[in-house]
Amino acid sequence: MRKRPNLAYKLAALLLLIIYILLFKYIMIFENQPENANAVTAIYWATTTIATVGYGDVVFASLLGRLFSIVVQVTGIILISGFLATYVITPWMDRIIKFRLP
Amino acid sequence: MRKRPNLAYKLAALLLLIIYILLFKYIMIFENQPENANAVTAIYWATTTIATVGYGDVVFASLLGRLFSIVVQVTGIILISGFLATYVITPWMDRIIKFRLP
Amino acid sequence: MRKRPNLAYKLAALLLLIIYILLFKYIMIFENQPENANAVTAIYWATTTIATVGYGDVVFASLLGRLFSIVVQVTGIILISGFLATYVITPWMDRIIKFRLP
Amino acid sequence: MRKRPNLAYKLAALLLLIIYILLFKYIMIFENQPENANAVTAIYWATTTIATVGYGDVVFASLLGRLFSIVVQVTGIILISGFLATYVITPWMDRIIKFRLP
Ligand SMILES: [K+]
Ligand SMILES: [K+]
Repeated sequence: MRKRPNLAYKLAALLLLIIYILLFKYIMIFENQPENANAVTAIYWATTTIATVGYGDVVFASLLGRLFSIVVQVTGIILISGFLATYVITPWMDRIIKFRLP
Repeated sequence: MRKRPNLAYKLAALLLLIIYILLFKYIMIFENQPENANAVTAIYWATTTIATVGYGDVVFASLLGRLFSIVVQVTGIILISGFLATYVITPWMDRIIKFRLP
Repeated sequence: MRKRPNLAYKLAALLLLIIYILLFKYIMIFENQPENANAVTAIYWATTTIATVGYGDVVFASLLGRLFSIVVQVTGIILISGFLATYVITPWMDRIIKFRLP
Repeated sequence: MRKRPNLAYKLAALLLLIIYILLFKYIMIFENQPENANAVTAIYWATTTIATVGYGDVVFASLLGRLFSIVVQVTGIILISGFLATYVITPWMDRIIKFRLP
C-alpha cells in the first residue's frame, strides 16, 4: 500500500524551508545584497534552482554563497526527485502495469 | 482507449495562453521594461522557462514579477509533464510492452 | 529488430547542422554581434540550449533571434529526446525486461 | 547481481575530478579571470553545468573555454546519467517489477 506524506514529513519539510530562508537571507546580507534578502526572493531562487531553470539574475558571488548553492542544487534535486519518484512516478507506473498487463 | 486532446482542452489551452501573454505584458510595463512587453518575448520567456533553459536575459525584478515567475515555472512544468506523460510517454511505453513481452 | 542510424539519417543530420550554423552566423551579424558569428560559438550555443543548461552569455536580442531561439529549443529538444528514446532508452529497457523478467 | 562502484572506479573518478579542476583553473587564468581560478568555483561551475542549472554568472568567453564547456556538458551529463541509470534507476525499477508483478 502506498502512503501519502504524513504529518512528521510535512513538519520536517516546513522546518527545512524555514532554515533555508533564514540561511539565504543571512548569506545575502553577508554578501552585501540586501535587496535580495527577503522570503519571496529566497523562494524564487530555490524554485528557479531546483527546477533547473537557473536564470542567473539572483546569484551568490562569495565562496560561502557558492558552497551554499552547491548544497541546495544537489540536495534540492535529490529531495524533489525522491518525492516525485515516490508519490508521482511509482503510482503512475503501477497504474500502467496494472491496467495494461493481462 | 487512449484519446487525443479534444476541442475543449484546446480552447482552454488557448485561453490560458492569452491570459498568460496579457499578464506578461502587464507586469513588464509595471516593471518599466516596455521593450519586453510584446507577444514574441512572452512566448520566448515561457518556452525558455518551461523547457528549463532559463537564459536569464529576460527576467522580472519586482516581487510581483518573481511570484509570477514561480507560478509559471511550477504550473508550466507540471502542465507540460502531464501532457507529455499522457500523450507521448504512456503510448510509447504501451508500444514497448505490447511488442516486447510475449 | 532495432536498427542503428543509417547513412541517410547521418547526411540529413549533417545538412541540418550546416543550415543551423549558417543561420546562427547570419542572425548574429544581423544583430550586430560579429564576435559571436563563428562555428564554435554556434555549436556552444546549441549544446548549451539543447542540454537545457542555458548560461545566457550568448543570446539573441532581436525578435527574429528570439523566434530562432524558440525553434531551436523546441525542435532541438524533440530531436534529441527522440534520438535518445530510440537508440539509448529503448535498448536499455529491453535489456532490463529481458534479463529480469522470468 | 548488481555491484556498487568499486575502488578502481572511485580512483578514476577522483583522477578525472583533479584533472578537471586543474584544467578549469588553467583556462580561467588564460582568460584573465583569476578571481574564478579556484577549486570551489570549479566545483560550483561543474555542479551548476551538469545539473543543467546554468546560472551563467561563471562562463568562459574564449573559443578554448567554450570548447571546454561543450566537452564538460556532454561528457558530464552522459557520465552522471550512466551513473544514475546503473546505481539508482535500475535498482529502483527492479524493486518495482519484483514487488508489483505477480
Ligand atoms: K537551465
Ligand atoms: K540557465
